[in-house]
Amino acid sequence: MEKLDRRTTLKLMGMGAALLAAGSRAFAQQTPTADQLVKGKNPKLIVLSQRPVVLETPYDLLVSQPERTSKEILFIRNNVDLPGYNTVEGASLDGWKVEVTGLVDKPFTFEAKELLALPQSEVTMVLQCSGNGRTLYNPRPSGNPWKRGGMGNVTFRGVKLKTLLESKGVKLSEKALYITAHASRQGGAPEFVRSVPIHALENALLALSMNGEPLPAVHGGPVRLVFPGYFGVNNVKWVEKIEFAEAENTTAEQMPRYRVPVIPNTHLPFLPQEPGSRYPYSFTNSRPNWLVNVNSFIFAPLEGQTVEGPYVRVEGVAFNDGIVPIVSVEVSTNGGRTWQKAELATQGKTFSWVRWRATLYLRPGSHEVMARAWDAAGRSQPLDGNLAWNERGYEWNGVMGVKFTVA
Amino acid sequence: MEKLDRRTTLKLMGMGAALLAAGSRAFAQQTPTADQLVKGKNPKLIVLSQRPVVLETPYDLLVSQPERTSKEILFIRNNVDLPGYNTVEGASLDGWKVEVTGLVDKPFTFEAKELLALPQSEVTMVLQCSGNGRTLYNPRPSGNPWKRGGMGNVTFRGVKLKTLLESKGVKLSEKALYITAHASRQGGAPEFVRSVPIHALENALLALSMNGEPLPAVHGGPVRLVFPGYFGVNNVKWVEKIEFAEAENTTAEQMPRYRVPVIPNTHLPFLPQEPGSRYPYSFTNSRPNWLVNVNSFIFAPLEGQTVEGPYVRVEGVAFNDGIVPIVSVEVSTNGGRTWQKAELATQGKTFSWVRWRATLYLRPGSHEVMARAWDAAGRSQPLDGNLAWNERGYEWNGVMGVKFTVA
Repeated sequence: MEKLDRRTTLKLMGMGAALLAAGSRAFAQQTPTADQLVKGKNPKLIVLSQRPVVLETPYDLLVSQPERTSKEILFIRNNVDLPGYNTVEGASLDGWKVEVTGLVDKPFTFEAKELLALPQSEVTMVLQCSGNGRTLYNPRPSGNPWKRGGMGNVTFRGVKLKTLLESKGVKLSEKALYITAHASRQGGAPEFVRSVPIHALENALLALSMNGEPLPAVHGGPVRLVFPGYFGVNNVKWVEKIEFAEAENTTAEQMPRYRVPVIPNTHLPFLPQEPGSRYPYSFTNSRPNWLVNVNSFIFAPLEGQTVEGPYVRVEGVAFNDGIVPIVSVEVSTNGGRTWQKAELATQGKTFSWVRWRATLYLRPGSHEVMARAWDAAGRSQPLDGNLAWNERGYEWNGVMGVKFTVA
Repeated sequence: MEKLDRRTTLKLMGMGAALLAAGSRAFAQQTPTADQLVKGKNPKLIVLSQRPVVLETPYDLLVSQPERTSKEILFIRNNVDLPGYNTVEGASLDGWKVEVTGLVDKPFTFEAKELLALPQSEVTMVLQCSGNGRTLYNPRPSGNPWKRGGMGNVTFRGVKLKTLLESKGVKLSEKALYITAHASRQGGAPEFVRSVPIHALENALLALSMNGEPLPAVHGGPVRLVFPGYFGVNNVKWVEKIEFAEAENTTAEQMPRYRVPVIPNTHLPFLPQEPGSRYPYSFTNSRPNWLVNVNSFIFAPLEGQTVEGPYVRVEGVAFNDGIVPIVSVEVSTNGGRTWQKAELATQGKTFSWVRWRATLYLRPGSHEVMARAWDAAGRSQPLDGNLAWNERGYEWNGVMGVKFTVA
């Protein structure tokens, strides 16, 4: 190797540093951090897609807020990229109008501002992407590679859609079997439309705030139509039209996307598919990702942790669609041979997740704890979540296991 | 009191005896025994209705045949009273014809006898009335007062409907979403029609025999169209017409009877009702009693028994719709605080019930054991079966508890 004089060496080093910095900038331009994509988001959120923005909450961050998920760490799965709305700050109500149409006796349009004068309601509910847990399916389905951080527990406040209809003296036709909500197409956004069963009207809320603050623009502010108990996708952000309809909407977000194979109108939650196979989705052989299925998550210990023994506190959350209560969460440390009921923090029906905890007596060494929830309707979780494999990887709710060590 | 001479006394006594005997005959005419109603049935079967005949298997008799339920004790829930068919003997195939029509490229009629020349298939399956367990609902719904004896496990043999269609070179239209079967109207019987989803074609069997003998006439012989995994009512006896249809049939047996309230096309198994309330059943707010829901029954100990301790064998059966396996049956003797997995006699998908057993260590005294099944799709049973209360009392699958004493 030739010797270089000091000046030349320094020059080359300088060039290298400049190249490195440029490369780093280029890399940063390719994968901006969460806070660069959405103003006010925690930079630790995992960027699954930039435009429309999709951010996952890292699991350790999720479990650090076991009561309410703050706007800074709440996951995002946007299907529409509304210009100027990528911020956790609120969006202006000024001039925001929403049309109510379809099978009603008097169609009308209201100003979002009018909602401020009506009685307000509040609901704490799980918001969960129907793709949450997708990476646990094998083989990996297409779609955003969610681990378990595509969910959160938030409090929405606003006006019940029923209250609004009553205040306007508007009545539904008996033929109205679905509520179809349309997101704003401001700035040339593609249409985003979802239909839910008319039963969802009972709790439907025109949300103006989240966790006591103006509803973040990136989460649907100024007005989001939320359906407690329904998967995230149904809670249409930036709502600008609400239709009462006889049938489900026929846009791609309703069919074939966001559906799982079923034998329609049976209580079979999904029709098992050969993993890796294709399915000819239709309205008559599949159902939408509507009601949140029963699920439970272990918040502590975390995978790979070492904890003090012999008494080990295991804790987490469980939830369902809120139509019936979670009856119990049970934990097993022997692969399911025996299950022990955990203590639930609250009883009764709720759209919120329910915290649970159990204290186990465990010897030093390696352990795996599993948790499963069971609700009053007799619904639980599959032991092997992959039985629900579907080509788009929706609605994973397999029993979660965590491996850890007792010191 | 006047004194009567001996002759008068004897005469009056004779008259009394004659009156008693006549009364007893009259009573017997009002409630004939099971064997009087249906030739060959065990006289211990409980008569719930005479015409059409409805017989329940007493629970102690049911559990005495834990593998297969014999024709002598198998429950009956007939909706049609076919003259001459109230016997466990077979019915003649001679002249029995079945029409296959609707959304097929070539409608045809076949002679039941033709089935004998085609490849035979066999299936062991649970037959269960969708009203089984009705008396456990509170308040008591209308309908036959079934306890837990409206079910059995039998082996049918015959020709798969698919095999028949293939042998005739007949193809279904893609519009065929339902299979509608019609029972014979011989002797002026009222029509009895049921529709099941086209998915049921996979296992549909034109059954000619049961438990290795000609299919008893009272159970649908000579030809019954059975759909393994479906509630009893769907397995149409004395089938004379099979239609492939775009929609469910609109006769009363399809709607409003044999349905439970739901939010259609969700995985909520039933929409909970206020016990005692009424529901405006329609095709769009309810689902038929189709797939058998997950259930488990304790066959030993029986309620009120005293058994030897401290090791107590608990055993029973569990089943579901056969689409996924039963993963485990768990028992609890502390009100659900802990559950212990029982041993299953067989693994894998099956339409048969699966026997299970567990050995418990129990102190002398009173105990209650509960059992619940859990399948691979994550379905289980409600802890409080009354949450599924519906005005017709269908599909009870609440967790069963048995109180017994350890000596």
